[in-house]
Amino acid sequence: MKIEFRQIGVIRTPFTRPEGMPIQPAGAAGVKGAVEVFEEYREGLKDLEGFSHVILIYRFHRSRGFDLQVTPFMDSELRGVFATRAPRRPNPIGLSVVRLDAVEGGVLRVRNVDILDGAPLLDIKPYVPEFDAPDDVRTGWLEPLRKTVGKRKADDRFA
Amino acid sequence: MKIEFRQIGVIRTPFTRPEGMPIQPAGAAGVKGAVEVFEEYREGLKDLEGFSHVILIYRFHRSRGFDLQVTPFMDSELRGVFATRAPRRPNPIGLSVVRLDAVEGGVLRVRNVDILDGAPLLDIKPYVPEFDAPDDVRTGWLEPLRKTVGKRKADDRFA
Repeated sequence: MKIEFRQIGVIRTPFTRPEGMPIQPAGAAGVKGAVEVFEEYREGLKDLEGFSHVILIYRFHRSRGFDLQVTPFMDSELRGVFATRAPRRPNPIGLSVVRLDAVEGGVLRVRNVDILDGAPLLDIKPYVPEFDAPDDVRTGWLEPLRKTVGKRKADDRFA
Repeated sequence: MKIEFRQIGVIRTPFTRPEGMPIQPAGAAGVKGAVEVFEEYREGLKDLEGFSHVILIYRFHRSRGFDLQVTPFMDSELRGVFATRAPRRPNPIGLSVVRLDAVEGGVLRVRNVDILDGAPLLDIKPYVPEFDAPDDVRTGWLEPLRKTVGKRKADDRFA
């Protein structure tokens, strides 16, 4: 079954190629970007400026095809794609929690972006710890690696 | 610009109607559900069982149309839809962080589900606090309300 969505804006960042990108917002501390929301949807941005962080949902637009098992950037073993954040997934949907610095008309000024320039925006949601941040978390194969994510960079394996 | 995705599974929950549903996983503590991943994608579930929580991305399949400003369940004022988690959005994409109890073949046993039965699954991502849970969070209009989210229920306003 096909499901159709619409592009509602575009994400601008300093990253024009996958190689050398930070792997997650944690590795993109301070990197600034802009989320340009198309005119017709801007009325929906009201009240967003009160939130310090937003969840961006977008398309991994440089991702083509997918594998069900992949070797993630942070690892050397084959992992199920749904146990990774790799962009080559059955549905190339990206999700990043970024810091919101300001809303200027139809443009969100954001920080800590780990997103490729030009990514088509699908949705913006306010980040709310009570909804989005559970306690007592275990992170499987990432457990020994996750503290070092800020130091790692992407290569071209998913380009 | 239209963007096409594919359904990769279906989410089963006790909630067959929007009315009376918990508003977020925080209000659905203990509620059990199952995520049935279609046969052809099951190989991608390898290694997922090591994670205590997963991010489900799905379609709000009972949502029709959208308004750019809405009165959320938790409030009495009109808010920009992107500053809310309301299901009637330009792209009706749902996002829930749920507890993963077990992976049994192609079925994820999950807990704390705030999702309507039959929701088409689009993606599963591992929840990783270093990626997904920032510090120093402010939550705008929700600030005075968010501690009470667990006690609130949905009504039919977005049906």
